[in-house]
Amino acid sequence: MTPSAPTPAYRRLSVEERRSQLLDAALSLFAHRAPEEVSLDDVAEAAGVSRPLVYRYFPGGKQQLYEAALRSAAEELRNCFDEPLQGPLLPRLSRALDRYLAFVDQHDAGFSALLQGGSVVETSRTTATVDGVRRAAAEHIMRHLEVTEAGPRLRMTVRMWITAVEAASLIWLDEDKQPPAAELRDWLVEQFVAVLSVTARRDQQTAALVEALSADL
Amino acid sequence: MTPSAPTPAYRRLSVEERRSQLLDAALSLFAHRAPEEVSLDDVAEAAGVSRPLVYRYFPGGKQQLYEAALRSAAEELRNCFDEPLQGPLLPRLSRALDRYLAFVDQHDAGFSALLQGGSVVETSRTTATVDGVRRAAAEHIMRHLEVTEAGPRLRMTVRMWITAVEAASLIWLDEDKQPPAAELRDWLVEQFVAVLSVTARRDQQTAALVEALSADL
Repeated sequence: MTPSAPTPAYRRLSVEERRSQLLDAALSLFAHRAPEEVSLDDVAEAAGVSRPLVYRYFPGGKQQLYEAALRSAAEELRNCFDEPLQGPLLPRLSRALDRYLAFVDQHDAGFSALLQGGSVVETSRTTATVDGVRRAAAEHIMRHLEVTEAGPRLRMTVRMWITAVEAASLIWLDEDKQPPAAELRDWLVEQFVAVLSVTARRDQQTAALVEALSADL
Repeated sequence: MTPSAPTPAYRRLSVEERRSQLLDAALSLFAHRAPEEVSLDDVAEAAGVSRPLVYRYFPGGKQQLYEAALRSAAEELRNCFDEPLQGPLLPRLSRALDRYLAFVDQHDAGFSALLQGGSVVETSRTTATVDGVRRAAAEHIMRHLEVTEAGPRLRMTVRMWITAVEAASLIWLDEDKQPPAAELRDWLVEQFVAVLSVTARRDQQTAALVEALSADL
């Protein structure tokens, strides 16, 4: 573990602040080690608090803390997708991707751990959390595209792109965050248009969207 | 479990045939249930053999059988990528995808289980098996493209496409194998060209490949 910065004089945090501080500490520990190798003592130390305090917030112990950390990261991730339903479509997508990539950048290994579900036993529950984020991303995209009933080809295209974005984020972290986030973002937006255009050749609904997208530019 | 077809009069199989019969039975059981809910009795029953015989082939018990089943599926999957380095490039990709989709079609839930690593405790080992298949797919593509040193943008594009193909396969299984395999295959090939073309705008190496691909048609 990296030594923590000198702890400032004990500061009183609100319950919410303390909870979120503990979750952050936990997520970054779980990001670097398997959950079975992280103890509550480690979490307490990383957060600069006592072990009983961690227990007060998470009486269920490590499993509860782990799941809460995953859920909190998932929620933060969902928040990245919030974007007003106004203005040209592709800049909306760019802004959401900017926030998403900032999240990936900030959480780094924690993001990989979140996506890969860690090596925790309760894989099915953590997988459900991550799948919920993927579904939310797809729903946001459909809402912005003003699609209420997406046909199978459009749905598949959007889900494939979302998976490709995830893969790109993991590779990006592996490759020392190259290319720069702004380039990656533009590239992903262009890929979105490109794959929709391919689908448009065999799907009316997607063809109409692609037309709307290019009229929108 | 679906009732098995009436067992034909006991047939002598070679060691290899027997082994592969047991692996198939195991894979399809693990595909539908968590490994902890599958017993060796179930495997014996599904394969129409005795429990001691399963133990004779897999003395390490369930964990050994599970990992062997995954490895065998992974190997079969890698074989799909084997394609002579001759003739126009995109038809080579189409043929490999045909074999891959036939594998997905045949293994169905077993394929999903393979990709999702199941809920087994030894996730890291099974993840490594699947990652090996992904890496093999990327290497095959680079070999066919005659690229010996892929730059980061080309590498990322190919890996993103491979992940998107995986996602498409899982969705395809979920959606009762619609669209038909041949259409899905063409669609995936077109997406491959489309995403490479997007990357070509910002990467010389990829631009040269896209040019070669279109000259090749």
